[in-house]
Amino acid sequence: MKRTEAEIITIGNEILTGHTVDTNSAWIALKLDEAGIDTRRIVSAPDEEQAIEEALRSSRARTVFITGGLGPTKDDITKKTLARYFGSQRFVTHHPTLDFIAENCARRGIAVNETNARQAEVPEGCSVIFNTCGTAPGMIFRDKDRIFVAMPGVPREMKRMLQDAIAIVAEELKPTKVYHRMMMTYGIAESTLSEVLAPIESRLPEGISLAYLPAIETGVGLRLTSKLQHGEELIAKEFEKIQQLLGKKVYGYEPDTLESVVGALLLERKATVSTAESCTGGTLAGRISSVAGSSRWFRGGVVAYSDQAKTELAGVDALTVSRYGAVSREVAEQMAEGIARRMSTDYGVATTGIAGPGGGTPETPIGLCLIAVAGPKGTSSLSINTMHNRTGNIIAATSAALNALRRLLDY
Amino acid sequence: MKRTEAEIITIGNEILTGHTVDTNSAWIALKLDEAGIDTRRIVSAPDEEQAIEEALRSSRARTVFITGGLGPTKDDITKKTLARYFGSQRFVTHHPTLDFIAENCARRGIAVNETNARQAEVPEGCSVIFNTCGTAPGMIFRDKDRIFVAMPGVPREMKRMLQDAIAIVAEELKPTKVYHRMMMTYGIAESTLSEVLAPIESRLPEGISLAYLPAIETGVGLRLTSKLQHGEELIAKEFEKIQQLLGKKVYGYEPDTLESVVGALLLERKATVSTAESCTGGTLAGRISSVAGSSRWFRGGVVAYSDQAKTELAGVDALTVSRYGAVSREVAEQMAEGIARRMSTDYGVATTGIAGPGGGTPETPIGLCLIAVAGPKGTSSLSINTMHNRTGNIIAATSAALNALRRLLDY
Repeated sequence: MKRTEAEIITIGNEILTGHTVDTNSAWIALKLDEAGIDTRRIVSAPDEEQAIEEALRSSRARTVFITGGLGPTKDDITKKTLARYFGSQRFVTHHPTLDFIAENCARRGIAVNETNARQAEVPEGCSVIFNTCGTAPGMIFRDKDRIFVAMPGVPREMKRMLQDAIAIVAEELKPTKVYHRMMMTYGIAESTLSEVLAPIESRLPEGISLAYLPAIETGVGLRLTSKLQHGEELIAKEFEKIQQLLGKKVYGYEPDTLESVVGALLLERKATVSTAESCTGGTLAGRISSVAGSSRWFRGGVVAYSDQAKTELAGVDALTVSRYGAVSREVAEQMAEGIARRMSTDYGVATTGIAGPGGGTPETPIGLCLIAVAGPKGTSSLSINTMHNRTGNIIAATSAALNALRRLLDY
Repeated sequence: MKRTEAEIITIGNEILTGHTVDTNSAWIALKLDEAGIDTRRIVSAPDEEQAIEEALRSSRARTVFITGGLGPTKDDITKKTLARYFGSQRFVTHHPTLDFIAENCARRGIAVNETNARQAEVPEGCSVIFNTCGTAPGMIFRDKDRIFVAMPGVPREMKRMLQDAIAIVAEELKPTKVYHRMMMTYGIAESTLSEVLAPIESRLPEGISLAYLPAIETGVGLRLTSKLQHGEELIAKEFEKIQQLLGKKVYGYEPDTLESVVGALLLERKATVSTAESCTGGTLAGRISSVAGSSRWFRGGVVAYSDQAKTELAGVDALTVSRYGAVSREVAEQMAEGIARRMSTDYGVATTGIAGPGGGTPETPIGLCLIAVAGPKGTSSLSINTMHNRTGNIIAATSAALNALRRLLDY
C-alpha cells in the first residue's frame, strides 16, 4: 500500500443501470492526479448495504474517496452503511449544517421538516467537511492510518468539497506534485496540430508528456504534464516553442475559454459588444454573458429567428433577405452592423445558418453558418460548415463567432 | 451468485487518471439492464497485469464484461493477461480476423505488418466475436458456468460487438426483461416530493421500485422500475396515482424536457412566443430554439443586459426602471409585454435578476430572478431565489421561466 495511492467508490443504482454516466470518478481521479495521488481502482456499487460494504472491504489504498447515496430519500443509504462499517454507535447533529438548512428553508418560506433535519446528522466519530452548496455534509472516517472521505454525488457539491478533502489528504501524505498546464488553441484540427508539433513532440525532455484534448466548444487543448522538480519551468519553455509555431491559434491557457478571453480583451480595450443571432438562437449571447462581470462589455443582443425579426430587431434590409436569402453573408453582415448601431456598441457579432436536423438545401446545407463581426474598422465575415448534430452545430457556430471576434480584438 | 447478474471491468490508464470519462460501462450497463441483466459492480483498472488479475479474481457475478486494452500498442496488455488468467497455453490465429486485417491493409495500400497480424491472434480455447469495424477480435472465456466477455475499448467497436455478446449470454441465461419509465416533475423539491409520495411509495407492489432523479435543468424525475411480467401495466397504474397527487407539477415523461413540452404546447395551440432576457443572457432563447423545428413557434427575442437595451429593445418605460429598479416585477412584466408586442407573438417571456457572483444587494440578492409571462389573457409574474453558482442560477431561472410558460399554456 503506497502512501499516495487512492481508490474511488461511486455509489448509486443509476450508475449500475447505466442511466447515469459516472463523471464524478473521472473528476476526482483528475484532481487526485493533479495533486500527485494515483488512483489505483474505481468501483461503482449500487445503493445496497452489502454491496457498499464489499466495496469498502475490498479497497486496499491508503485513501478512499466515496461519492453518492447521501441524499434525503429512502434509497440513499451510504451514511447508515458507513456508520455501521466504521462502528459508530450513534448519529449526532452537525449544528453548522443544521443552521445552514434552517436558513435555506427560511429563505424559501418553508419549515424545516424531519427529512431535512436528518441531513445534518452524521455518525459519531467522523469529522465533517462543510457543504457550502447543499445540505449533505461530507464526512471523513479514519481506520488506523487509512482515510475514507465520503461526499455527496451531486457534482457541484462534490467538486467544491473535494478541494477541501484533497487539501486535508495532501497535508497528511505530502505527495509529489504533478504539474499540468494546458494551452488552448482554436481553428486548427487535431491531426494538423499533431503534424505541426511532431518535431517538438519527438524532442520533449524525458519526463514531460503531451496530450491533445479536442472539444467542439473549446478547440484543441494541448496539455503538458510533468512530475519533475523543475516541471513548471520545463513546460513553460516547451509552451513557448509551441506558441511560436502556432501564433494566434493559441488563445490562452486553461481555465481560459473563448468567451472569457473575448471578455478580457473587450475590458482591456474598454469596448462593448452586442449580438444578433439566428441559427445559434441565443447561445452566443448566453456564452458571452456567462462570464462574471460581462455587463461591463456586453450590452445585449437579439435573437432574430424569423425574417421579420431580422429586419425589425437587427436592422436588416428586407430586400437583402429576399435577394440573398436569410442564410447569406450579406444578411450576416447587416445583422452585425445593425445590432452594433442599434445598441451603440463598438462591436457587433452575428450568426445565420442551418442548425438542423431539418431545413437544409443544396445551397445552404445543414451545418452551414455565416458569421459576421462589425467593428470600428469595418465588417468582416466567414462561413463554417460543420457536421455535428443540432446542438453540436450551434456550439461550433458560437465558438467560431467568438473566435472571429477574438482575432479582431487581438491586434 | 444469481444467474442474471453481471459485472463490468473497464481497463485503461486514461480512466484512472481521469482524462477519459468511462462512458463504456454506462452503455454496457444500460444494454444489460434492458436485457434484464443486473450489473452488480463496475470496476476500472489500469493497464497493469496485477490490477487486471485482481479485478478478475474479485469478480463474483456469473457474467463479466471486460473492455479496453486490446489495442496493438505496447501498453495494451489485456489479451496477454486474460490468456494467463484462464490458463491458455498458446495463441492461435483467428483467420477471419486476419483476412479482414489483410483486406483493410490492401485497401489502404499497405502491407500487413507484425503488429497488425498479432491483432488476429487469440488465446487458445476462447471463442471469438468477430469485430466488424475494427481489428481487435472480441473473446469469450468460460470458467465452469461463468462467462467472461472481453471487448475492445473503442466505443463504436464495443457497441456493435456487445449486441452479439448479449445475445449469446441471454440465450444461455434467459433473463426477465426490465421495464423502466420516468415521469418528469417541476416546481416541487425532492424532499417535499418524497413526503407527498410516501403513502404511495410505501405501498408499491412487490417488484416495483421508485427512484428520484433531481437536476436543476429538468426538475425531479420519478423513475419506476419493474421486472415483473405485467410491469408496464403496473407502472402505468402507479404513475396515474402519482399524477393525481402531483397534478400539473408533472410535465411529461422521459425524454420530454421543459423546452420540448413548451414547444409541443405552442405548436398544438398554433401560438408563438418571443423572449426578453436580462440575467439569463440568451440562455432562455437558446433552450427554446434547441428544440428541432422551433422556428414554427419561436420568432426570436432580445437580450437586454443594459438598462438602455431594456427600454430600446424590450420596450420598457425608462421611468419604470428608475422607479422600481431593473430587477423588479414591474420591469419583468413590461419586458414580457413589450417583446410580445414588438415581435407580434402570442406570448412573451421575460427574466431579470442577479446571476452573480457579484452585483447582489440586500433587496436584490444574488440568485433572485423575476420572471414574467405575457399572454392573450394578461401578464403574470413570479420571483425565484436560487443559490447556485452563476451558471446554476441562470439554468434555474430559465427552467422556472419555461415552466411558467408551460403552466400558462397547459390550460
